[in-house]
Formats: sequence, structure tokens, C-alpha cells
Amino acid sequence: MNKPYFSEEHEIFRKAFRKFLEIEAYPYFEQWEEQKQVPKSFWKKAGEQGFLCPWIDEKYGGSNADFGYSIIIAQELDKVGSGVGIGLHNDIVIPYIDAFGSEEQKQRWLPKAVSGDMISAIAMTEPGTGSDLAGVQTTAHKDGDHYILNGEKTFITNGYSANFVIVVCVTDPNATPKHTGISLIVVEEGTPGFRKGKKLRKLGQHANDTSELIFEDAVIPKENLIGEEGKGFYYLMQKLQQERLMLSIGSITASRHMLDITVDYVKQRTAFGRPISKFQNTQFKIAEMATKIKIGETFVDQLIMDHMAKKNVVNEVSMAKWWLTDLAKSVASECMQLHGGYGYMEEYEIARRYRDVAVGSIYAGTNEIMKTIIAKNIGL
Amino acid sequence: MNKPYFSEEHEIFRKAFRKFLEIEAYPYFEQWEEQKQVPKSFWKKAGEQGFLCPWIDEKYGGSNADFGYSIIIAQELDKVGSGVGIGLHNDIVIPYIDAFGSEEQKQRWLPKAVSGDMISAIAMTEPGTGSDLAGVQTTAHKDGDHYILNGEKTFITNGYSANFVIVVCVTDPNATPKHTGISLIVVEEGTPGFRKGKKLRKLGQHANDTSELIFEDAVIPKENLIGEEGKGFYYLMQKLQQERLMLSIGSITASRHMLDITVDYVKQRTAFGRPISKFQNTQFKIAEMATKIKIGETFVDQLIMDHMAKKNVVNEVSMAKWWLTDLAKSVASECMQLHGGYGYMEEYEIARRYRDVAVGSIYAGTNEIMKTIIAKNIGL
Amino acid sequence: MNKPYFSEEHEIFRKAFRKFLEIEAYPYFEQWEEQKQVPKSFWKKAGEQGFLCPWIDEKYGGSNADFGYSIIIAQELDKVGSGVGIGLHNDIVIPYIDAFGSEEQKQRWLPKAVSGDMISAIAMTEPGTGSDLAGVQTTAHKDGDHYILNGEKTFITNGYSANFVIVVCVTDPNATPKHTGISLIVVEEGTPGFRKGKKLRKLGQHANDTSELIFEDAVIPKENLIGEEGKGFYYLMQKLQQERLMLSIGSITASRHMLDITVDYVKQRTAFGRPISKFQNTQFKIAEMATKIKIGETFVDQLIMDHMAKKNVVNEVSMAKWWLTDLAKSVASECMQLHGGYGYMEEYEIARRYRDVAVGSIYAGTNEIMKTIIAKNIGL
Amino acid sequence: MNKPYFSEEHEIFRKAFRKFLEIEAYPYFEQWEEQKQVPKSFWKKAGEQGFLCPWIDEKYGGSNADFGYSIIIAQELDKVGSGVGIGLHNDIVIPYIDAFGSEEQKQRWLPKAVSGDMISAIAMTEPGTGSDLAGVQTTAHKDGDHYILNGEKTFITNGYSANFVIVVCVTDPNATPKHTGISLIVVEEGTPGFRKGKKLRKLGQHANDTSELIFEDAVIPKENLIGEEGKGFYYLMQKLQQERLMLSIGSITASRHMLDITVDYVKQRTAFGRPISKFQNTQFKIAEMATKIKIGETFVDQLIMDHMAKKNVVNEVSMAKWWLTDLAKSVASECMQLHGGYGYMEEYEIARRYRDVAVGSIYAGTNEIMKTIIAKNIGL
Repeated sequence: MNKPYFSEEHEIFRKAFRKFLEIEAYPYFEQWEEQKQVPKSFWKKAGEQGFLCPWIDEKYGGSNADFGYSIIIAQELDKVGSGVGIGLHNDIVIPYIDAFGSEEQKQRWLPKAVSGDMISAIAMTEPGTGSDLAGVQTTAHKDGDHYILNGEKTFITNGYSANFVIVVCVTDPNATPKHTGISLIVVEEGTPGFRKGKKLRKLGQHANDTSELIFEDAVIPKENLIGEEGKGFYYLMQKLQQERLMLSIGSITASRHMLDITVDYVKQRTAFGRPISKFQNTQFKIAEMATKIKIGETFVDQLIMDHMAKKNVVNEVSMAKWWLTDLAKSVASECMQLHGGYGYMEEYEIARRYRDVAVGSIYAGTNEIMKTIIAKNIGL
Repeated sequence: MNKPYFSEEHEIFRKAFRKFLEIEAYPYFEQWEEQKQVPKSFWKKAGEQGFLCPWIDEKYGGSNADFGYSIIIAQELDKVGSGVGIGLHNDIVIPYIDAFGSEEQKQRWLPKAVSGDMISAIAMTEPGTGSDLAGVQTTAHKDGDHYILNGEKTFITNGYSANFVIVVCVTDPNATPKHTGISLIVVEEGTPGFRKGKKLRKLGQHANDTSELIFEDAVIPKENLIGEEGKGFYYLMQKLQQERLMLSIGSITASRHMLDITVDYVKQRTAFGRPISKFQNTQFKIAEMATKIKIGETFVDQLIMDHMAKKNVVNEVSMAKWWLTDLAKSVASECMQLHGGYGYMEEYEIARRYRDVAVGSIYAGTNEIMKTIIAKNIGL
Repeated sequence: MNKPYFSEEHEIFRKAFRKFLEIEAYPYFEQWEEQKQVPKSFWKKAGEQGFLCPWIDEKYGGSNADFGYSIIIAQELDKVGSGVGIGLHNDIVIPYIDAFGSEEQKQRWLPKAVSGDMISAIAMTEPGTGSDLAGVQTTAHKDGDHYILNGEKTFITNGYSANFVIVVCVTDPNATPKHTGISLIVVEEGTPGFRKGKKLRKLGQHANDTSELIFEDAVIPKENLIGEEGKGFYYLMQKLQQERLMLSIGSITASRHMLDITVDYVKQRTAFGRPISKFQNTQFKIAEMATKIKIGETFVDQLIMDHMAKKNVVNEVSMAKWWLTDLAKSVASECMQLHGGYGYMEEYEIARRYRDVAVGSIYAGTNEIMKTIIAKNIGL
Repeated sequence: MNKPYFSEEHEIFRKAFRKFLEIEAYPYFEQWEEQKQVPKSFWKKAGEQGFLCPWIDEKYGGSNADFGYSIIIAQELDKVGSGVGIGLHNDIVIPYIDAFGSEEQKQRWLPKAVSGDMISAIAMTEPGTGSDLAGVQTTAHKDGDHYILNGEKTFITNGYSANFVIVVCVTDPNATPKHTGISLIVVEEGTPGFRKGKKLRKLGQHANDTSELIFEDAVIPKENLIGEEGKGFYYLMQKLQQERLMLSIGSITASRHMLDITVDYVKQRTAFGRPISKFQNTQFKIAEMATKIKIGETFVDQLIMDHMAKKNVVNEVSMAKWWLTDLAKSVASECMQLHGGYGYMEEYEIARRYRDVAVGSIYAGTNEIMKTIIAKNIGL
């Protein structure tokens, strides 16, 4: 590895986490895919060993770990297989509580997030709006000490197993511009009027439970509002940098991994009397992928360092998001091709990667949205 | 449609076949995918109604139908979903019997191929050889009135349900060049020493049973040899034109279908307050796909007419095979992207197409093999 | 060749024309590029031998030749080099006179167009409007028996040498929609108030004189109006099919030509001790180009036949225009690369082609315009 | 800018150099292109002001400047236009003398290299060998105190104006492996038996004189051998890192520059009633280019820092070379397209860039060679 943002302590941690995964994750991953869910017991074990939100302050049970540990967790989980929702919980959802929650909220939720007693999700997308956050239709009407939530969310990762969902909703339908009427409200499992649809059947990412969430006059105590009313959109913008950076790290990790297993494969496999690796087409395809992956890694490394130095690199992470998710798709396609018929078999990892990475260009803001953002930043 | 190779009779046939599929196939397709097999009862029904090998001579139970009917069957089956192995049976396997089989063989097998009592497969690929036909390792040693077969085949479409497999094997291991020692031998289900592996778990094409076939001192009557010993490779070359043409027809049919459902989708779906179809990016992506598909259709039309006129267009069908299977992959990718999050859900057809078309560039001679052939024909 | 639209007579004509070019064009082409113009003497000679507008009716001096002869002229001229403006004159400009001109206009201009005494151009593009025909700013104000023309045109092929220019202009500035105020008016060389800018220095297409045309109170007799006032846009739309088809033919001819010279080159040239043609990368690149070119040729053949059968294939020629001009650019780039350092030298034809074909995606309606048209036809 | 390898002093130097170029280069660049040569007087002026080889030790007249100054010179020269051969002289040719020359050679040549009295070139490529250095055919036969050189070199940048050429030649034709028989020998202008061909006419890079060099029994004093006999190939390998890095810097600088001028253009230019920058296609194309350029810059920055830290990054610079030269070609193509018709006019800078950057994928080791190297490093 030898990255400037990893110390020896990080590598010790990586080894420990990898050992944990070898015992608790690798042997079960296929089963998780069949059940379309990571069992809660795995979350608990991960929490017990300090692998959930290690960045959280010690007073809430965390380890005050730096961002490097988050990266290691994401990388090692990705090697097990795609779709384990711990990265989402650790580095995308829970940071909202930490950054914008009240002291009371932190005390209530952070320790459980660390221990694995609480699995979290964030509900942005709606059946009718897609990536258009400002167009959210779910409403939260204040009624005394409560909000009454109505609406529907979809494609919610961890949605089925979550004990706790941050819901993006409209608290002021008359706000202009519209996005100033958006708030973040936590809805806990068991809340009356809140129910989950069944787990969605997806093309890939099967270990990941994804579902619809339905709110019909759901009654939420007003203490569950995160931060201030009308600031939801602003909070979301604040956290985009880390969210897209995490996705970028995941994508480049997957690309490197696919290349590695393919390099091994073409060295061993023969066709027409010699190793596939000796065909110039194989060599060039791999050289091209190796180049793009190296260039992508260098970019992500720089963004990680900038992010850790608290620089504003939202534009750059938006660039990374689309370019690296597209790269992962094309690497999956080329690598599957180099595997020949075996590449199409589920027992070969490349087949599973092919279906798993395909979502990258769609989720967390489609790649089209990323390009719109970048163009805006250029002043077009 | 309005193709020069389709008459009014063809269109009447298409309607009849489509009606048959609406009753017997569409409602069950999802179930077939789960069972990883089309049930034998469906084959029987298709046979009863004349949809299996209609091109076979009437004296063997067929209808003497021209190639246009084969195209219609392939196209309509593809609209149901990918992977129904009838096209393979109809237009790729059975033609070997018809073209190179003895009168006795024809009488024995063709009527059952037409009635649906016999499902057929052809076994070329081996675990160690991939697309390299001349490098086949399965041997057939003559012993009195029998051949003793030993070897392994893999990725055999219809392999699990087949009653009847044409096996590509080496009858003369000392032949030079090697490919002159290759023969085609029919192995029937139930033959001692012949067994099937379990159905392979694939990335897509789930309705299609695919499996390994194992021959351990399998004893085959010498009457099961097709044509002459040592002519197998030559027979295979003879049939490549129709095989690759069928694949090309399948690919372009799938591409057109994916485009059609996507055009419908983008017209209905809105984002940021207007139909997705009104975004210039959507318009350009669709215009680009529509162009390539139209160009591809025109090429396939020409090849169909040339093939029906018995012209030698092997080089051109090799071109079509790689270009159109790659096109189908890129169309699947672009169309899934235009579907946004829904595109990744198995209940949307585009998600299923994405995984199904991915095999096109791999099977029936990888696209790399196609390019090698084309280059050879150019004299490089 | 062996195209359905070419008879033996066509091939005799091709040979005659090629012989003519070998004597009158090939030896001088480099000189023409330096002078940035084809000399008028060449036009005269071409006219004398019947190579200008052979499709014109015999009563105006033509040969009543079918569209196949136009194709041959375009193809053979393109082999000499890019940018000889005869194709534009023959098949794009003069057809307006033939289709929409009065009997008097035909008698006045067609014979000279055939004899080479008159070189023609059509002036659409303006400095401020680009491909937006409806936004044309040049005005023609009627004043008694004359039109007073004011405005500027640019990028006009044949503009410098033209004796005769069809000018797209606004005769009714108040028309709604705007395009119903557009007319076509012929401006002859020597008209007071009409002058030409200097020949523009272009990246390539050097044999082709291209210039600005300036109209400052230019006085044009009203007899020079083509057809009716306000119908200009409609006339232009009528002729787009043939215009784009000619461009498509030119592009695919150039692509085939570039491939041919590159195949020759890689067979002769060695690197690392063997012909470049023996490297798999070379073979695959050439196989890929050969495929796309073959597919493109098949499409163009179909469009030629449809066009000759007077079918409406505007949408299809718009598809052909963008796809084939892009193809020519990528073929130029790949072929230059396969030439190595020699490819960058002007004495190698591929270098010249590289700069010449680059304009294809820009002129005669940019490729973006083509995609807009196609999208509109799909109903997006 | 704000790069870690640039200090305030660097930026002061940049300003000074830019001012120098505004007076001495920008106004004359078009003239240089017409003359296909930068005049010697410009070299002299650049030398006088310290812009030639500033990295050379003070005792030979240099300034002991770090690599950052070389980058600035390369970047600012590239903004003037492509093909000024000073970068080649400064950072590719002269370093051989500095690194491998004897003290006597350094004293003889370095001061003149700094003052601009000596223009240098390096002659690797031969008509028959291309990028295959080990296959060089030019021989240097030792005869007493002299080498007798015979052979031909081609595509030699600065070849016509050079006073001094480092010639890659075979001193031991029997060496095994062949590359151990290769040496570097300096040939000075005026040497009997050494003559230059005429300046080659290239597609672009016109300011750059490029020519053939012919050696017919050229008599070279043996003191002109650089370093040891038979070590030439090894010396070349040593310097590849800096050579490819300089090319990469040039390519990314050109790409950024093309994007900048295009962003300006699309903001000003209107079509169909609104700025081109408001079309989504424009926005996406620019966002995509901006992303790739940013990612490329980040990679180059990292390589610059590694190179300055004397790390071995030959593999990475080989990656950068092919990826960035291909990027520059595609950026030129996209940007020219966004310029519409103006993009094809030589008076618009983008047209000139289009022809200039096209050589990037060919020279200094073709991009195919780069991929071969990368594949070898992966162990394929």
C-alpha cells in the first residue's frame, strides 16, 4: 500500500479486521447474498470488535479514529463482496447525527451505532423524483410535539434491516426556493404509520437489503428533527463530499481487485496452446486497465488527503464519482471478457462483480447529475 | 417490419406464434428463470403446434418452411426473455443431422426433433480449451461396433435437459493437422458412462439450462457417427454461417427491444420537473443508439438475404457477431442508465437484459476469435 | 464493387472518368492544395467530357444520367484527394435550379453548369448562426424589379471561384414562424455590392476554396429568385436527403480508402523483426475497422437504393451522416497510428486524410444537429 | 497553479519567461510555422536570458535550477504553440552530456548549450526500424582515432537546425544481446560525410524543423563517444523517465489549454438563440473533459514529485505518456467540434492544436510500445 495517509497502526488494524472478516464474513457471504441481507448478528460482532464507526468520540463509545480507518473498513469489506451496508452506516448516515444532532441525540443514538445495536439508513430517493433532492414529496407536518410524516421512499439501502432511518422530507411546503423547506427527521423502527416494503430484487449487490419505506401519518416526536428545520438540504450538501469520496474509494478498490484476479487468471489459463497472457490483445487490455486504475488511485489518494485536511473538494469528488464508477463498469466488462466462458459463471468472482458494480453510475446521484454539477462549477 | 424476406404468410405465422407464447410462455418465464430450465412440457406443446424445426422436410414431420420462419421464431422467443434454448435446437443443432446425417439417422431423430420429444444440444467447449475447436481433448476410441468416449464438456446449452447431444470429439489422435481427426458423434441420454453435471449458475440467461457433460468410457454405437470420421471440423465450419447469423439476429432483436422499452420509459418518467426525454443528453444517447441499431438491422437484413441465397458470407457474419453482441452490451448499459434506479431492479426488464446480453461477446466463438478470423481473411 | 445500382455502363464510365483524372487531376492535386483552389481550366475540361452534372436533361446539355453516375464521380474524385468542389456543384447546388427554377432560369444556367463555364456555390452559413438555418440574418429587401441584399455568409465552399451563388436569405423579416420568410436568390459574380473575402485558411481540404461572401446593398434582379418567396426553407429541406447522402458516400469512400492503404502499409512495414501486420493489436484494429466500414457500406448501399427509388429516408441519411463522418475520423486516427512516424508526414496520404476528414462532423449540419433531428423523429 | 513543486521564485521566473515570450515568440510564431523553423536568433536570445538548460551547473554557465524551472519553460512554450524544440534540447538531449559525458565533453558543449550557440538533437529513429531501438542499423566502425559512421536517421526533431546530434549507433554488430552493442556518439555539423535531408513536411508541429540525417563514411573523432562503448542502450533507458515525463507535461498542458479556450468560446458563441454553453450536450462534454484533465494533472503532479525525489517511476511515466497523449487527441477533437465551423479554420487556435497533438501517440515510443512495457512490468 504505502499511502501517506496510512501509518503502521492502520496496517495493524487492517490485519485485525481482515482476520475478523475471514472468520465472520468470507465463509458466509454467499449465504448473505441468498438471504439478501447481512444478519444482525454480524453487525453485533463487528460492533463488539470496534469496527463500527470507529471515528466516533470515545465518550459515545467510539475510538476517535481518523478517516484512514474508515477507508480500511470500506476496502476490506469490498474485497469480501459488494453490498455490505456497514460503510453506509459508518461513514454516510451516522455522520449526520454526529455533525448536526443535538447532544441528547448523540447520547441516544451514537453508542448504539457503535455497538451494532442500531443499524441505520438514510432515505432520500422517492418513487417519483430520483436524484432530484429539491423535488422531494414526503411531507412532515408539525402537530404539537410531533411531526406527521406522509410519503414514500424507495431504493433505501439497509432499509429493511434499519432500526433507524434519517428521512429527507418537506417541513415547509411553501418555502422559496423549495430546498429551504427541507428537513432531516429520524424515524425509528416500530413507529406507528411507518412500514417497510419487501426487500427489492436487484440485479446485484444482493447482500444489501434494499427496500421501500412507506409513511402514512407516521407520528414522530419532534425531538427527532436533526438540527434545524429547513436546513436539511444544506446538511446534505455538507456531507456530499464524504459520501462521494466513500463511493469513489469503493469503486477504485473494486477495479483494482477485478484487475488482480484477472491478471492471475490470464497467466494460468491457456488457449491455442499458450497462456492467454501471451496474446497481445490480452496484454494491451490489461495495460490499459492498469493505467486507468493507477491514475484513478492517484486521484483518490489526493482527494483523501485533501478531505482529511478539510479542504473543499466537492467538485473533485463529483468528478471522481462518475469517472470511477464508469471505470469500474468497463473494467468489469473487459475482465469478464478475458475470463471467457468462466467469466459468466456465478462461481467466478468476476461474474458477481459485473452485476454489482453496474449500480455505481446510478446511485448516490447519477453520473448525469455529477456532470451537471461539474458544468455548473465551470460556469456553464 | 416490411422486410423483403417476409411475406404475408410469415406475418400470419408470427401472429400465431406470438399468441402461443402469450399463453404458454410469457406467464411462466419468471418461473422458468427460477427453475433454471424451460419445462419439457413447453417443448412438447411447441412441437405439437409446428414451432420446432419447421424447416425440416415434410417426410420427417416438418413443414419445409424457409429460413424466414426460423427468424420469426427466434425474434419472438427473444421478446419473451433470453435463453430459451429452442433456437439452438431448431437452427443450430438439428441442421447437422439434416445436412450430414444418414437417411437412417434422419428417420430416427428428425421426427422427434420436430415433435418436441427430443431436445438437442451440441457439445463443443471443454474445460481446458475454450473456443479452440481444433484443440478438443475428448476422445472416441473405436472398439468393434462402438466408440468409447472419454472427456468432459462444459457450458453446454440445453445440456441438462437434452435427450440427445452431438459431441465434438477426436477419433484420430494422430491426425495432422489435428483438426482432420475430429468427428461428430451423437450421444443419447441414458448411455452408460455418460452423465451430466449439475446446472451451472450463470450471471444471466437463467431460463437456459447449461451444464457440464462427463464421458467416462461411454459406449456409443458406431451408427451414431454423423457423416464420416475426421470430417467433424469441416462440418462445423459449414454450419458456422447459420449459427453466427442466428446469434446476430438475436442480438439485434434484443437491442431494438431494449431501445423500445427505454424510449417508452423516458417519455413517461420525469426528473427535475420535466420528462427525462426532454434532456438533451437523453435525446443524444437515444439518437446514437437508434442509429447504430438501424445500421445493424440493415446489415443483418442483407446477411439474411445473402444466406437465403446460399451465398458465402461467413466473414460478414463473423463481423456481425462481434459488432452486434458488443452493441447489445452497450445498449443494455446505456438503457439501464437512462432508467435510473429502476433500471437496477429485476422487475424492470432492462435489468434482466443487462445480465443476459453480457454473454454475447463470449459464447459461440469469443469476439476475439471473430476478429482473428476477419484479420485472416484480410490476409494479415 | 458489384453493387445493385451499378451496371456495366456505369463501370465503363468509371474507367473513363478515372483515366481522365489520372491525366488531369492526380498529377496536379498537390499544386491545387497549395493554390487552395482547383483551377477553372479543370472544370472546363471536366465539363467538356461530360463529368459535370451528367444527370441534367439532354435539352440543357446534360446526359440524363442516373444517380449512379453521380456516385461514381464523387467516389473517384475522393480518391484523388479531398475537397474538390465538383460534387457540391453537381449534386447539391445545381439540383436546386433543376428542381425549383423556372424554365428561363434553367435555360440560362444549366447549360453553363454542364459545360463548366459556371461554377456554383450555395451560401447558408453566417458568421453568427452556424447550422441554424431558421436564424439566417441576411436580408433581401424588394425594391421595384430588384432585391437589395445585405448580410454576410461564411465557410462557403467554392465561394471564391463561384460564378454563381444561391443565397439563403430573409425576404420577409416579419414572417411567423421565421422560417416561412426565407427565400433562395441567385447572386452572380460581378453583381455590384457583392464581394468575396479572401480564401479561408483551413485545417485541411485545401484544394477547396472556401470564403466569406459579403453583400452590401447588392442589387439582384428579381428574376433571380428561385421558385417562390418564402419557400426557401422548404426547398432546402427537400434537398437535404441528397446532400447528406452525398456526404455519407464521401465519408465511407474515404474510410475504405484509408483502410486499404493501411492494410498495404502494415503488410510491408516491419517492426521488431516481423511485419506490423503480424501483431495482434494491428490485426484487431484492422478487423474492427473493416467491420465498421463493411457495415457502413451496407447501410449506404441501402440508402442509395432507397433514394433512387424516391423513398423518404431523411431520417436514415441523418443517421448515416453523423455515424459515417465520425467513423471516418476514427479510421483516420487509427490508420495514422498504424503508420507510425510516417503517418504524420504530409507525403503519406494518411496524414492528409487525417486533416481532411476532420471537417465531416462539422459541416452540412453538425453531428449534433443530426442527433437532434433523429431524436425529434423518435418523438423525444 | 499552487503546486507543491513550485515556490514563489518559480512563479517570478514564470512571469519573466512569459514576458520574454510575449515579446520574442508570440508575435512571430505564425512566421516560424511558415518557415518550418524557429530562427537561431531566438535561441540566442533565450540563452542570453537564462532560459536554456537552467538546470546546468553554474561552472558550465547554467543556474543550478531545479526541475520545476524546466516544467515552467515547457508549459509556457507550449502555450505559444506546439513544436518549439527548446524543451527537447533543454531536458532530453543535453542531459545525456551532463549525465554520461566526460569532463572534457561537458566543458566543450554545455556552455554553448546554455548560451544558445549550440542547438542539439538526438537521432534514434531510422527509416527501417521505428520505435525498435535495439534494431538500430546505423554503424560506427572504429578506425584508429575515429569512428566511421554509416546509416540513416529520420524524423529527427531539431535535425535541420542542430549544430550537434547525439547519434544512436551500433559499435559492435556482433554483440549478444544486440542492445549491448549500441553506443551514443556526438556528430557535429560540418562533419565530412554527414548531411541533412530537407525539412520534412508534417501534418502539424510546423515550427519544429524535422529532418533526415544521412551518414556516409562520416568521420567522427573518438572523443565524441559519450560514456562507454556498448552502454548506449543503457544510457537511453536511464533517461526515458524524464523524457516521457516531459512529454506528459506537454500533453496535459495542451489539453488544459484547449479546454480553457473552448470554455471561453462556448460561453460567447450562440446557436438557436442561446449560448452554446447552455446546451446539455456542451455541458456534459466539457464536464467530461474537465474531469479527465483534472485527473491527468493530479497524476502528472505526483510523477513530477516522484521524479524530483529521484524515485523510479518509469512504469508510471509510460502509463502517463500513452494516456495523456490519447487524451490530448480526444480533447482536441471534442473541442474542435464544439467550435463548429470556426474550429476548422487555421486562425482559430483549436484547429492548429488538432494537427499538432496528433503526433503525441506516435513519437518517443509509440503508445503501443508503452502498453508493451506496462504489460511486461505486470509480468504478462
